[in-house]
Amino acid sequence: MNFASVLFLLGKLIQIEGALFIAPAVVSLFYGEKQGLVYFIAAISCAVLGWLITLHRVKEQNYYAKEGFIAVALGWIVMSVAGCLPFVFTGEIPSFTDAFFETVSGFTTTGSSILSDVEKLSHCSLFWRSFTHWIGGMGVFVFMLAVLPMTGAQNMHLLRSESPGPDVGKLVPKLKDSAKILYIIYFGMTVLEIVLLLITGMPLFDSITLSFGTAGTGGFGIRNSSIADYSYIQQLIFSIFMILFGINFNFYFFILIRHSIKEALNIEEVRVYLGLIAVSTAAIMYNARHMFESLSDGFIKSLFQVGSIITTTGFSTADFNEWPALSKTILVCLMFVGACAGSTGGGFKISRVIIMIKSYLRELMHFIHPRLLKNVYMDGRKVKDETVNGVEVYLLSYVLVLIVSVIVISLDGFDLETNFTAVMATLNNIGPGLAVVGPTGNYSGFSILSKYVLSFDMLAGRLELYPMLLLFAPGTWRKK
Amino acid sequence: MNFASVLFLLGKLIQIEGALFIAPAVVSLFYGEKQGLVYFIAAISCAVLGWLITLHRVKEQNYYAKEGFIAVALGWIVMSVAGCLPFVFTGEIPSFTDAFFETVSGFTTTGSSILSDVEKLSHCSLFWRSFTHWIGGMGVFVFMLAVLPMTGAQNMHLLRSESPGPDVGKLVPKLKDSAKILYIIYFGMTVLEIVLLLITGMPLFDSITLSFGTAGTGGFGIRNSSIADYSYIQQLIFSIFMILFGINFNFYFFILIRHSIKEALNIEEVRVYLGLIAVSTAAIMYNARHMFESLSDGFIKSLFQVGSIITTTGFSTADFNEWPALSKTILVCLMFVGACAGSTGGGFKISRVIIMIKSYLRELMHFIHPRLLKNVYMDGRKVKDETVNGVEVYLLSYVLVLIVSVIVISLDGFDLETNFTAVMATLNNIGPGLAVVGPTGNYSGFSILSKYVLSFDMLAGRLELYPMLLLFAPGTWRKK
Repeated sequence: MNFASVLFLLGKLIQIEGALFIAPAVVSLFYGEKQGLVYFIAAISCAVLGWLITLHRVKEQNYYAKEGFIAVALGWIVMSVAGCLPFVFTGEIPSFTDAFFETVSGFTTTGSSILSDVEKLSHCSLFWRSFTHWIGGMGVFVFMLAVLPMTGAQNMHLLRSESPGPDVGKLVPKLKDSAKILYIIYFGMTVLEIVLLLITGMPLFDSITLSFGTAGTGGFGIRNSSIADYSYIQQLIFSIFMILFGINFNFYFFILIRHSIKEALNIEEVRVYLGLIAVSTAAIMYNARHMFESLSDGFIKSLFQVGSIITTTGFSTADFNEWPALSKTILVCLMFVGACAGSTGGGFKISRVIIMIKSYLRELMHFIHPRLLKNVYMDGRKVKDETVNGVEVYLLSYVLVLIVSVIVISLDGFDLETNFTAVMATLNNIGPGLAVVGPTGNYSGFSILSKYVLSFDMLAGRLELYPMLLLFAPGTWRKK
Repeated sequence: MNFASVLFLLGKLIQIEGALFIAPAVVSLFYGEKQGLVYFIAAISCAVLGWLITLHRVKEQNYYAKEGFIAVALGWIVMSVAGCLPFVFTGEIPSFTDAFFETVSGFTTTGSSILSDVEKLSHCSLFWRSFTHWIGGMGVFVFMLAVLPMTGAQNMHLLRSESPGPDVGKLVPKLKDSAKILYIIYFGMTVLEIVLLLITGMPLFDSITLSFGTAGTGGFGIRNSSIADYSYIQQLIFSIFMILFGINFNFYFFILIRHSIKEALNIEEVRVYLGLIAVSTAAIMYNARHMFESLSDGFIKSLFQVGSIITTTGFSTADFNEWPALSKTILVCLMFVGACAGSTGGGFKISRVIIMIKSYLRELMHFIHPRLLKNVYMDGRKVKDETVNGVEVYLLSYVLVLIVSVIVISLDGFDLETNFTAVMATLNNIGPGLAVVGPTGNYSGFSILSKYVLSFDMLAGRLELYPMLLLFAPGTWRKK
């Protein structure tokens, strides 16, 4: 374990966070809020601390698999610890555990909240809370690779640990350029959403913060009613943008950079993703039809909720906890499935589900025709055996984390539906679950232990399990 | 697909079932019940029908993988159809769907019931209902291999399709002898339980039927209160025998035939199984302590329920639906884990869980030490890569069947806890779930569609998924 290079990276990260704190500080100036002072102090403290840590230059800046995983895991924890302190010092979320939970929920784009009344927060804190979604959505290490002068082919491991999906590829030969392209698309789409919302007459503050929540597929709102009080046209814009941000960014790369719509539409994952959204929306529209006022009301509410859950955003316009069993079951299944790999969404990822089902059908065929090769094809290419095996191991890890988490949080004595969906909602970075943690509830009732377990789950879900799990492997901490 | 040899096997099977019908017919003579006539007619009809089918001798009696799977899947369905007809014709369960569900539940040793009042049944029907557990427990094809003059090394595929576990081995070189040894141990232990129960003063009818339910890890009782009204000492005997029947039968083979207790105790699966029972019992005793009258009451109720659920028997002495969240969560986890491979119990099987966790830890270590071999060891021997891969694919199949089943039965509109645990309880051959299908409830409220889906799950669980899934693969039905 190369501790020096991991520490150096953490120092850089703290400096970046210092820079990010300037945004809510500026917001406070507009609204004349005294809480802004805390954000200014936080910005300066982080800058100084980061500078001190990075004073000692390391010669070797390469990160191999292990260092990559650990740097990313520790990086996200450090970011969350630093990021939650303003909530504590402004007194808006006085408990450290709660503030940490809320910030982890922000950076991991989960959107689970311990707050029962978000409207009490100052504008600068609301802004910071939503901003964490935007930062976490595309990944802070990806950002670092895009802007900082870092070299070394092994930095791939950093990108790999932070980017979701079974098999992360580079868009273009140079890693740095890939990271830049990702951020340009991300930034551009966010700006487009803000502009569209402004055109519908939404206030600037709402447009920016809620676009952050959409872009990162986070789900923190700025009203207690989440998105329910906004107009149909605004809800429709949110629905469309949630779905757009849940698409594999390769799709936009093909369209915008390579100008090849054909290549874009050939991505199997995107087609399955859009098909799943269409089928689920139709099924819920029909199954829960007695809950809706009209056909268009049913369409917008169903599309919004399906989009919100499959992309793991977690916004809500209706209390889907009251919807009939089939609709709830569909939503719980979509929680698990999640969005496309290479998007800002969480969950198990569509491409993993596709590989899983294909490899599974292949195994079944193998019983009938024992001489058949067990190859799995996606987008017309053979999926590497290593990738197929990786998906199976990922499912194993996922089930184990799920089971252990449910057991621990069930100590608090809530019902099974609450416990199961609370873990599902955090591990898949969604936000609300069902029952106690449904769209009208929140996570404040859990014990301190459970809040840390759920924070772990959020981080494990966002970083695709292994970085967080490796923190607990004894071999990780052995010095070379 | 060699249809002729599959049909021949089904004919033999129907003849065997005819012979089995004689038992409840004899019981009816003791109690002077007119329902016995139906069982006599059933016995004769099956004998004649089976004889007609097997008139045409097939030359080639070998069963390759595909024929083995399909013969077993169809065999179990045919057995259940024939086995449910007496319930229909005696008028005790007039609906065919319900009678089929109940009989599948019997043969698959699930113990889920659609009856709200079992005490209304005649003695001969109660006997038949429990007898199906005993027949299904060790497997009817295993029985066939033990008693019928069948040769051919490929008959291994029949045994493999019916015996639970990730990797079925032969105890002794000759398959026929292995099957015989299994049945002798099974028969001996059942007799021992009956004798012990008789000594405690239990009536003969109760002793026999409930021992059938224990031996097959089935769970059908003969009273509406399941086992709750029996004495502590009798409950303790049930607990111990449930746990004994959930142990890998290799354990008894080592002790009884090879006289090597050391070898027996070296079986890792057995040690993990007993450890899991001890830990779970202690945890529930503590967590649900306010539900128990005394320490010994708590011990017996906890041990009984843990033993009943982990072995997938499904007897109950307490309404565990009322127990606190942690206890219920532990029980749901044990539902999934199940008993040892090579036992009469169902579920995912302890050995699969062990292989899963070990292979998983190995993968995790691989991140840290990329040159490490990914070997998994059990009982001191390397587990074949094929077996490890098989476990991962099995989990995949399991999750897919689980999800699809939950979606379909949620059409009935019950709550998520009911739907989820109903599928868990049938797919793992347990019996009762939670909420509506909890120990005081039953499955009668489900629609016809759901009852067939759950019947499919019971068969899929008992036959370890593939035989039942292959029925739906188009390639299966193609003639060579």
